[in-house]
Amino acid sequence: MNFVHIVAVISVLQFFYFGIMVGRARGKYGVAAPATSGHEMFDRAFRIQMNTLEQLVCFLPALFLSAVYWPDAIIAAIGAVYILGRFLYGAAYAKDPSKRGLGFVLSILPTFGLLGAAGVGALMG
Amino acid sequence: MNFVHIVAVISVLQFFYFGIMVGRARGKYGVAAPATSGHEMFDRAFRIQMNTLEQLVCFLPALFLSAVYWPDAIIAAIGAVYILGRFLYGAAYAKDPSKRGLGFVLSILPTFGLLGAAGVGALMG
Amino acid sequence: MNFVHIVAVISVLQFFYFGIMVGRARGKYGVAAPATSGHEMFDRAFRIQMNTLEQLVCFLPALFLSAVYWPDAIIAAIGAVYILGRFLYGAAYAKDPSKRGLGFVLSILPTFGLLGAAGVGALMG
Repeated sequence: MNFVHIVAVISVLQFFYFGIMVGRARGKYGVAAPATSGHEMFDRAFRIQMNTLEQLVCFLPALFLSAVYWPDAIIAAIGAVYILGRFLYGAAYAKDPSKRGLGFVLSILPTFGLLGAAGVGALMG
Repeated sequence: MNFVHIVAVISVLQFFYFGIMVGRARGKYGVAAPATSGHEMFDRAFRIQMNTLEQLVCFLPALFLSAVYWPDAIIAAIGAVYILGRFLYGAAYAKDPSKRGLGFVLSILPTFGLLGAAGVGALMG
Repeated sequence: MNFVHIVAVISVLQFFYFGIMVGRARGKYGVAAPATSGHEMFDRAFRIQMNTLEQLVCFLPALFLSAVYWPDAIIAAIGAVYILGRFLYGAAYAKDPSKRGLGFVLSILPTFGLLGAAGVGALMG
């Protein structure tokens, strides 16, 4: 089993899930494409997806680059924290945008850790 | 020839193309930066680009991860369907956002297939 | 030292930096989440981040794919021009969106060059 690849696949599926939530919010709150706002609840779903897009674009390179230099199991475990943090972020943001802090930190810190590990590996390697 | 890499390069060029269309729509419909809406036709071009960004961030990891475990030619062929689907999506959306369904499905299904292939490969490998 | 990986890590950190600027602009100009506009200066910070997101999604695959076929040092040097161009882009855009051209070109040309190098490599390799 390649744990790092499994984490990568799950992180992409998670992003898909947030995208599906946006599609559902379009129907539920009557925000037809190409509009990207018009109802507070739609806006939240959209921002969860967009913020996760921003994070995923950092997370995946950090995950793959750090896995070049460090043991798979450790990198995958840190990556799993990112996924958990993102789910917390999404759940909290949907309820109350001002409560999104914990999930945000729990998903951005693993990415920073992986980026640091990748940077150290690339400098040493 | 590395077919998977060629598909990856074309998918990035396609995204660039949609970006150029947004730039042209800025001029044509008088939507100056940093605004991202103001004219229905600009909004469509912008949403085509943004949705392709969302898709590309899923497609490329799915393409590269699945190619680790499965034959290049098969993975590249599935990837080519994604590119075709995206062009259909863009062409249909620009004419009528409500007609974007077929192209959307033809680009999201290949990505799901590749993600599944990557997941199975990572679990077995 | 793996110069290509170091460039990749810095390009992701640069994107994080632009994201932090958006967060600061939220507070400074009173644009609470989930809104993504409401003050010209916030809009500029947000567009710098979003445009860099679009560019990064093209730059990283171009960087990694071209490095498969060409010498690390050359690819990393071209990648460094992208990073410089992005900083110019961000600094210019924040002051005056109409002056963003030079930085934009200096970050998009390296990506095109790397994509071309990747394409040629994939066709020859």
